[in-house]
Amino acid sequence: MSTHPRAESLMVREKLVKAFEEGVVTTAGLIAHGRGECFDYIIGEKTRSFAFKAEKTAVAALLLADHPVISLNGNATALAVKEFIELARLVNAKIEVNLFYKSFRRIKTIARTLEENGWTEVYGVNKNVCATIPEISSLRCEVDSRGLYIADTVLLSIEDGDRTIVFRKMGKNVIAIDLNPFSRTSLWASITIVDNIIRAVPNMVSIAKTLRSEDKPRLKEILEDYSNTETLKEAVSLINSRLGLFALKGTFDLNVLENDGEKAYLNGR
Amino acid sequence: MSTHPRAESLMVREKLVKAFEEGVVTTAGLIAHGRGECFDYIIGEKTRSFAFKAEKTAVAALLLADHPVISLNGNATALAVKEFIELARLVNAKIEVNLFYKSFRRIKTIARTLEENGWTEVYGVNKNVCATIPEISSLRCEVDSRGLYIADTVLLSIEDGDRTIVFRKMGKNVIAIDLNPFSRTSLWASITIVDNIIRAVPNMVSIAKTLRSEDKPRLKEILEDYSNTETLKEAVSLINSRLGLFALKGTFDLNVLENDGEKAYLNGR
Repeated sequence: MSTHPRAESLMVREKLVKAFEEGVVTTAGLIAHGRGECFDYIIGEKTRSFAFKAEKTAVAALLLADHPVISLNGNATALAVKEFIELARLVNAKIEVNLFYKSFRRIKTIARTLEENGWTEVYGVNKNVCATIPEISSLRCEVDSRGLYIADTVLLSIEDGDRTIVFRKMGKNVIAIDLNPFSRTSLWASITIVDNIIRAVPNMVSIAKTLRSEDKPRLKEILEDYSNTETLKEAVSLINSRLGLFALKGTFDLNVLENDGEKAYLNGR
Repeated sequence: MSTHPRAESLMVREKLVKAFEEGVVTTAGLIAHGRGECFDYIIGEKTRSFAFKAEKTAVAALLLADHPVISLNGNATALAVKEFIELARLVNAKIEVNLFYKSFRRIKTIARTLEENGWTEVYGVNKNVCATIPEISSLRCEVDSRGLYIADTVLLSIEDGDRTIVFRKMGKNVIAIDLNPFSRTSLWASITIVDNIIRAVPNMVSIAKTLRSEDKPRLKEILEDYSNTETLKEAVSLINSRLGLFALKGTFDLNVLENDGEKAYLNGR
């Protein structure tokens, strides 16, 4: 398998299939992962500058928040549970399990995965502290009254658009990790990280280690310097520039063209 | 669910998940489907002119072949079993089950699906007529000695690149249905149909109904008029043109931009 041109991508895929067998990931989650793979392939499977900037801004937003909550679903747990926990500790956020394909069994399985990795206070599990957000039409409307309900800043990933829109209309800041810059989540989020979750969360952990010692005015500066429309435009421009170059050269070998693609992208800015 | 902007795509997805539960589709097949969804989304979820031309050429190639074989895997069966059978009848092709994630149980399940839809002579099931193609490193090397082994023209879809390359090196014509114009399968195939299987196969059925009454010189003309490099370039140009327009306008609503995108694409040719 190591000779396969997409070996790393296949290893990540195996991780997800294992999580599927454990009941953490759903069939829909597997399909969603494939969609993400495709976008990652197009952006070149690396963290681009616009994504890194969004990651830095996201960490600043989490550090400035009064009630930051990391919302985990099956795929996010499968791909980066350790890193999400480390990030939550660094920015002092809660972790809540909130699922589109919701079952109490799945919630418990994901909560157990978190516990096995050292995070015990999992929100979204205890029915006694359940609040409802009626604007959300799926079972995702049931949230933790100590968590997503009162959150001012929410970090989510690989998301359906509906919930993102409702959260935004409620006035919450939404940070979304989403490889598809055209998704409704990407368009509605306050900060969209167009990057693979397996790179984005470790990056955010590193950034948080530095930024947590900065003072509030400096963190606010980072936020003010950020435009999400600009991020999305840059993401689409990169995709466009890469595809344009492939079309022009009449060859489609991503590795061969990577350097040129990079140059064209940087020159075009 | 009908209010969801991607309602049709979700219905197809449900079909696939059902097939997964029946043992026809694998976890890897679900992920591969998601990757295809992404490309379909970018090309605009319709059959483009270059794809239609490839479909027409493919039908001509099947009609001209001495031993045409349709190679079915789990996803292809789940998404278009009826249409593949109709096409096989129209072009007088064999149908062979050939799987990457191979198990005798899965082969039997897929064969049963074909039988339930009226196709009884399924190749790739009977171990007494099994031949080996040693160049194929996966279990896909085991083929039917009456089918893929002697085939001069093979129609396949949603494929790993390795087998396509080996088939081509063996001198077989390969027709590939693949939404990713950058895949190794797309690059190596003789005729690449960059279209969703749920549109491509019904189109090919309609085309076959017309072309089967044409004489051989006319069919050969169609083949001679076709360039696969051109098809791939056009596919990438379309993607590029659509994404470029989205980036330019600073809005990413695919539906709103569809008409303009179409115009830009056509003007640019």
